[in-house]
Amino acid sequence: MAMMIVIYPTPVDSEAFDRHYFGVHVPLARQIPGLRSYEVSDGRIVTPLGNPNVHRIGVLRFEDMAALNAAFASPQGQAAGADRRLFAPDHCGVRMFLFDNREV
Amino acid sequence: MAMMIVIYPTPVDSEAFDRHYFGVHVPLARQIPGLRSYEVSDGRIVTPLGNPNVHRIGVLRFEDMAALNAAFASPQGQAAGADRRLFAPDHCGVRMFLFDNREV
Repeated sequence: MAMMIVIYPTPVDSEAFDRHYFGVHVPLARQIPGLRSYEVSDGRIVTPLGNPNVHRIGVLRFEDMAALNAAFASPQGQAAGADRRLFAPDHCGVRMFLFDNREV
Repeated sequence: MAMMIVIYPTPVDSEAFDRHYFGVHVPLARQIPGLRSYEVSDGRIVTPLGNPNVHRIGVLRFEDMAALNAAFASPQGQAAGADRRLFAPDHCGVRMFLFDNREV
């Protein structure tokens, strides 16, 4: 399987973020072709390494990296990406990691 | 479900890291009670936001945050944590995120 992890830093207005995220972004992202599952953190995100300053984490799964790349090249993937850049601009601390993974 | 994501920065010696990670750490971590699944990135980790400087990502699942907390308080969890601090010390860029999540 391939995985995309998106880590959103704590925004200035968490309620406005969540309203947009769940009301607009999730419905857009769920239309991305090839999406196998889409999980979102629910509640506080903690770390043993001090305050992570992270508000939400999204975990999206695809069959493999080829499917993931095709998904984000699709019109639906482009729309979800454009929406993400609105509420979590590239230069404002959002982190994204895309990779193949395997059970160990 | 609860999830723990561990993000390892690119080490000085990737081969030595992997030898320890797969030869010692994974066998230790797999003994943690309550562990439901354990996935590890396989190959290059990419991001649309530039070089992530990340070598490996581990994704561990537990039933819920109570199970996750109990798991890491266990002797097996303590042993896995102590081992992690050897090959990825707290002050050397490792990031860990623990959270409940839900399918959207």
